[in-house]
Amino acid sequence: MDIKSILKKINEPEKPKVKKVIIAYSGGLDSSLGLALLKHVYKAEEILAVTLDIGQGEDEIKMAMEKAKKLDISPKLIDKKKEFTEEWIALAIMANSDYLGYPVSTSMTRQIIAKEVAIIGTKEGCDAVLEGSSGKGNDQYRMHNVFKLFAPELNVLVPVRDFDLSRAEEEELCRYWGIPITETIRGGDDKTMWCRSIASGAIEINQELPSDIWMWYVPPEKANEKGEILEIEFKEGIPISLNGSKAPLSEIVPSLNTIGGRNGIGKIDIIEDGIMDLKSREIYEAPAAKILLTLHRDLEQLCLTKDEVQFKKGIDQIWAYLIYHGKAFHPLKEDLDAFIRQSQKVVNGKYKVLLYKGNIEIISRESDSSLFYPEIRSIKTGGFDQRICANAAKIMGLPFEILAKRKEKIRS
Amino acid sequence: MDIKSILKKINEPEKPKVKKVIIAYSGGLDSSLGLALLKHVYKAEEILAVTLDIGQGEDEIKMAMEKAKKLDISPKLIDKKKEFTEEWIALAIMANSDYLGYPVSTSMTRQIIAKEVAIIGTKEGCDAVLEGSSGKGNDQYRMHNVFKLFAPELNVLVPVRDFDLSRAEEEELCRYWGIPITETIRGGDDKTMWCRSIASGAIEINQELPSDIWMWYVPPEKANEKGEILEIEFKEGIPISLNGSKAPLSEIVPSLNTIGGRNGIGKIDIIEDGIMDLKSREIYEAPAAKILLTLHRDLEQLCLTKDEVQFKKGIDQIWAYLIYHGKAFHPLKEDLDAFIRQSQKVVNGKYKVLLYKGNIEIISRESDSSLFYPEIRSIKTGGFDQRICANAAKIMGLPFEILAKRKEKIRS
Amino acid sequence: MDIKSILKKINEPEKPKVKKVIIAYSGGLDSSLGLALLKHVYKAEEILAVTLDIGQGEDEIKMAMEKAKKLDISPKLIDKKKEFTEEWIALAIMANSDYLGYPVSTSMTRQIIAKEVAIIGTKEGCDAVLEGSSGKGNDQYRMHNVFKLFAPELNVLVPVRDFDLSRAEEEELCRYWGIPITETIRGGDDKTMWCRSIASGAIEINQELPSDIWMWYVPPEKANEKGEILEIEFKEGIPISLNGSKAPLSEIVPSLNTIGGRNGIGKIDIIEDGIMDLKSREIYEAPAAKILLTLHRDLEQLCLTKDEVQFKKGIDQIWAYLIYHGKAFHPLKEDLDAFIRQSQKVVNGKYKVLLYKGNIEIISRESDSSLFYPEIRSIKTGGFDQRICANAAKIMGLPFEILAKRKEKIRS
Amino acid sequence: MDIKSILKKINEPEKPKVKKVIIAYSGGLDSSLGLALLKHVYKAEEILAVTLDIGQGEDEIKMAMEKAKKLDISPKLIDKKKEFTEEWIALAIMANSDYLGYPVSTSMTRQIIAKEVAIIGTKEGCDAVLEGSSGKGNDQYRMHNVFKLFAPELNVLVPVRDFDLSRAEEEELCRYWGIPITETIRGGDDKTMWCRSIASGAIEINQELPSDIWMWYVPPEKANEKGEILEIEFKEGIPISLNGSKAPLSEIVPSLNTIGGRNGIGKIDIIEDGIMDLKSREIYEAPAAKILLTLHRDLEQLCLTKDEVQFKKGIDQIWAYLIYHGKAFHPLKEDLDAFIRQSQKVVNGKYKVLLYKGNIEIISRESDSSLFYPEIRSIKTGGFDQRICANAAKIMGLPFEILAKRKEKIRS
Repeated sequence: MDIKSILKKINEPEKPKVKKVIIAYSGGLDSSLGLALLKHVYKAEEILAVTLDIGQGEDEIKMAMEKAKKLDISPKLIDKKKEFTEEWIALAIMANSDYLGYPVSTSMTRQIIAKEVAIIGTKEGCDAVLEGSSGKGNDQYRMHNVFKLFAPELNVLVPVRDFDLSRAEEEELCRYWGIPITETIRGGDDKTMWCRSIASGAIEINQELPSDIWMWYVPPEKANEKGEILEIEFKEGIPISLNGSKAPLSEIVPSLNTIGGRNGIGKIDIIEDGIMDLKSREIYEAPAAKILLTLHRDLEQLCLTKDEVQFKKGIDQIWAYLIYHGKAFHPLKEDLDAFIRQSQKVVNGKYKVLLYKGNIEIISRESDSSLFYPEIRSIKTGGFDQRICANAAKIMGLPFEILAKRKEKIRS
Repeated sequence: MDIKSILKKINEPEKPKVKKVIIAYSGGLDSSLGLALLKHVYKAEEILAVTLDIGQGEDEIKMAMEKAKKLDISPKLIDKKKEFTEEWIALAIMANSDYLGYPVSTSMTRQIIAKEVAIIGTKEGCDAVLEGSSGKGNDQYRMHNVFKLFAPELNVLVPVRDFDLSRAEEEELCRYWGIPITETIRGGDDKTMWCRSIASGAIEINQELPSDIWMWYVPPEKANEKGEILEIEFKEGIPISLNGSKAPLSEIVPSLNTIGGRNGIGKIDIIEDGIMDLKSREIYEAPAAKILLTLHRDLEQLCLTKDEVQFKKGIDQIWAYLIYHGKAFHPLKEDLDAFIRQSQKVVNGKYKVLLYKGNIEIISRESDSSLFYPEIRSIKTGGFDQRICANAAKIMGLPFEILAKRKEKIRS
Repeated sequence: MDIKSILKKINEPEKPKVKKVIIAYSGGLDSSLGLALLKHVYKAEEILAVTLDIGQGEDEIKMAMEKAKKLDISPKLIDKKKEFTEEWIALAIMANSDYLGYPVSTSMTRQIIAKEVAIIGTKEGCDAVLEGSSGKGNDQYRMHNVFKLFAPELNVLVPVRDFDLSRAEEEELCRYWGIPITETIRGGDDKTMWCRSIASGAIEINQELPSDIWMWYVPPEKANEKGEILEIEFKEGIPISLNGSKAPLSEIVPSLNTIGGRNGIGKIDIIEDGIMDLKSREIYEAPAAKILLTLHRDLEQLCLTKDEVQFKKGIDQIWAYLIYHGKAFHPLKEDLDAFIRQSQKVVNGKYKVLLYKGNIEIISRESDSSLFYPEIRSIKTGGFDQRICANAAKIMGLPFEILAKRKEKIRS
Repeated sequence: MDIKSILKKINEPEKPKVKKVIIAYSGGLDSSLGLALLKHVYKAEEILAVTLDIGQGEDEIKMAMEKAKKLDISPKLIDKKKEFTEEWIALAIMANSDYLGYPVSTSMTRQIIAKEVAIIGTKEGCDAVLEGSSGKGNDQYRMHNVFKLFAPELNVLVPVRDFDLSRAEEEELCRYWGIPITETIRGGDDKTMWCRSIASGAIEINQELPSDIWMWYVPPEKANEKGEILEIEFKEGIPISLNGSKAPLSEIVPSLNTIGGRNGIGKIDIIEDGIMDLKSREIYEAPAAKILLTLHRDLEQLCLTKDEVQFKKGIDQIWAYLIYHGKAFHPLKEDLDAFIRQSQKVVNGKYKVLLYKGNIEIISRESDSSLFYPEIRSIKTGGFDQRICANAAKIMGLPFEILAKRKEKIRS
């Protein structure tokens, strides 16, 4: 691999003429290289870089901004933390978000970013948008869909995919143009406060995981010896306080990542079906999601009717599926949201829970809107006379009486 | 509560005339009392007692047989372990059996027993069957359905419910008739090799669990310090070997109860919706089920297509729901079985797994029929040229282009 | 059957003591007899009769009021037509209401009535409510559920069921107490503007239907020779105009019953699964429902995304199931409503349709919010270059490449 | 459009080197042109043409064979009628096949053809397969999937799409190479005995349909004045006799197309969601399918349990969806088949039905395996005492008592 052949690869293909291009700049390799490509290859006249704070943490934002200086750009910093937590993570909790074990996170943020970029790009008169997805993964589909919905007239530039660049070639180009390479983990690391995905798609089926890849998670063997007790309160399906103090979700989630992680909670190691139906082994780290989803599911079992609990499983399944498959702004997702929000009005309660070496043990459940009424079954309070069940059993058993009659009829 | 008023309660109501009655005798309080009631209250001329070995363990069988001597009966012992494991537990594994966290177990055995009893009762010319369910729980419905299907002509006697007896009254009657009371846990303890249910329905919402109620489970704090590594092989969805040795399911399951339990695995503490839609807190203990279901689900994710994985969730949900709701012999259950069995033909593979203080960590996955082909995404093997995804994204994004057009049209 | 034995049947059983009882009086046999029973048998001190106008038609209301005079009561007349059409029929249309071919109608009105009666009864200090359901049908469950939800403290009196009265016995009692018998059709005729049910449950499997049972429907052979053309406009899923004139649903529906009926539309003859799982042959007459549901379904296919069309089928199925099964006020129904209402925001359009001897032929479809964009496929407008589909086919076909690889692997 | 530019279009692009190519020859424009392209453009050394008899009718087969002579090829004729009817149409009936109103037909035959061609092509040592799909429709995806599954090593040539040919250009090429153009209807007419699709994708939203496009269907206005009465018997879900004579499905279906058509039955005019989510108006003609599916659905309501009827709706929906979306050989389809076949074992019965000007009126239903037992509800036979329903209502209404308690609790 020499630089010449790489330069040929990117210079030869015909490219759309672009004047003003918007790019979502994260400080990572893909978007940093994207900036250089806009200048050197697409020959953009004007570049509009925006950086979205989606809860990746202050360090990462700072790093991005420092690197931006070196690249000689001043990205516009837009704070999306409130929207991400209050509109997206909140719904993910209400929807018990779970796609094959993954609580869908990057799936959400990519689409939030794409929407913001599409809207700003259109308002600012851009004629193209550049994004750094590779052509092997899911993000290209997610971002494409959102761009087409909110800015159908923008040209979408996806250089890594469209010039068929490998990771090594990208790095070579960075070196060539003097772009600092700050990442160490390869293959698609992405961090949000809801879930961090590690080396997406690059991990082999039986590859052992190095112990230093974790940010929050401590393996049970090394976790806190005593465990920790937490108290979490939910209102209308959403956590509103931690250990007795009211706090917004944007604070509760990071706290739980720290606390859960040090108690051995949050590792996810699954076989995942990608958008193109390709299976990959995926590693995630999501202590807060694991705790909140465990408790929320339990709380729903306390507060929702049996019929709702059963039916909502299908609602939740398709909700996560849509988010994962790049349909965060699809009308069906809005229909599902309406169902989900309506169902959550009575999902209120307080949990005390022990975190211990990977285990989440519920110590107590309290809820003013629970449907748990043991006194109905209790003899003392005369909830109901058990003799009446004899008749209920007869009526509920009628289908079996009929099936027996048919068996008899067919036999004869 | 004096014995006279209890005797009045059971003697006063009109009772069906019965001659020869079959009873499933387990040695427990309900069936022991049932025997006495048949003699003293229903005035049965002949009693046919059968005891089913459904994997409750040799101790329990032995206890039942010894107690039988004292009660002066000789129950016919019928071994149903093979059927229970090979036809029922096997399917429960294939179906990822899960009703709100409970792997459905007593739900199965009650119906297996009811079927056996119904068939023998009919063959032996009985005119009634007696069973010990209370009128507060699920079992009465389960047994009623199965009796009505396989022996619709038999009178079903459910004295505890139909005489409205409380547990205390039952015990009083036992003392009165000299029936030894051998049980210590109250409220519906039931043990099968697949899952043990503890004090069913009697546990309060925030009641602390005494540490001595467990048979297999050791809380993580007291579990094995080192953990244990297991190797399990599945063929067509069913475990066929443990740690390298082929073994039938009827051996693998008990072994895993022991091993899993001592490593902190198997406690289930859930809010459950009963057949009558009443919520109760239920405590179960099921180390083997927890391990096997975790691995089977993972293996399915490796071997089934994405479409199957998604659709089978709904199949599995209704499967467990039917079993729980007393429909183990319902035609829909047979239809689901056909689906499930067909889907399992490629669910083959071998897992190495670390059990450690409540955690089940997969160390390696191997499968000859997996659909994991990372080389397709890999650049080296030229699986596919990532540039072609640009067009796929365009086509798959068409719905969003159309939605954008509509937005535009509506706006104008 | 002599009157003495009937009187014995109703006088002997123990009855709850009631002071002030509310009754939904329709003028039919059941509620008229109910009034007499309250006086003569339950010995109610005070009776509060309410009559609900739910669109059964002026004739029926008038008949009820005249009969009331003879019975010496003055029922309070409450107009529920607006609520019935705007809250219930409207949603039935949006939900493509269909339970095995039946557009659920009495299922709705019984529950609307029960709710109203429960609320008034509570407010007026009643201690009981009397309703006329038999113990063989669905309505007893529907009314019971609603009473228990909105007036759990009221005693529910269901004399026909609880005294085990047959229809003939009811009539005998009416004659005995001098209550005029005004009905001619037996077995549960019930008319609402949405659907009329005929002789519910009493029709034999292959019984020929007398030609004079229909109110609106004219069999195709005798229907209008020329047919009629209609224009109907929908807004947010609800019909808002007929033949160019805006009109409320409470006018459109009756008009369509007349017009549809005379063109051979509206007969329903199905095998139905009742609440107790008993199958019966049911005959309904619902010209307006048939027309509106046909067009609404077609309009949804024009305006909703493919994903919504597919998923909403399951939503609609459970919606009708809940209504039918007496769960019109169940929380799950409210969750479904939220989904359905959200989905209908773009269901706008105008249909021209020919009704001819039982056929509903769509002549034209117009919609400002349709998702029908044929120009995208058209070459002329350059919607998309068909060559790009080669790559889309490759990507969408990847699962089959992988399945082929597995077949190869397993074979070898 | 001149021939030179068309020739340039097909000669310029780089083409895979092919030696021996298999082609499914139907006699239509696409496959006839395909033959010429193989010779003149792809320079195939050897061409293997196969023609599949899939019930398109003797006329069409004869026409194809005569045209073949002119084209100087001798296609191998393979009879697939038996497989098509007994394996595919039979299952379509059992599955109540319905994709948005379309009984899925071409969707099936394309995949049956592709499988046959793939297998023969592989066996005969071909290195490529040519098929005539355009790049605007569904068939390209269907055939691609099947080729990739059964002959992944074959090059797939799709010239119309890959050279971006319009219909006019195809015709121009035919004239240039002297290929007779025998078709008159444009836009994708396709006939099978199960359903004929007319001008697929080319019909505008409000275009009036010419009266001469129908093969079987006669509009109600011109249909038979008297109607016709039919008798059809089903065994295990499949029609086995017509008007009292046993006959294979391959005879029953064509007969019903004739009889149904002349009685105004079989027109389908729907808005359809294509594989690429593009909506189109589609016109089909399927008298036999309409009759058989109407009766089969009714028969299922008679013979299946309520739970099966409800659950099977979802099974049927996904079944048709998979077939339509090119997944006729997908493992999930096989799993669904297993469910469906199991469910049909009791779907036996005989129907008498009047066809009259578009209406299908059931005159009588007979079945030995029906679950219709009206005597259970009948008082005379003492099926059940209606008084017992009081208790059943209480138990089934418990969830509402609990909801009322919660309302009270929240209020206070």
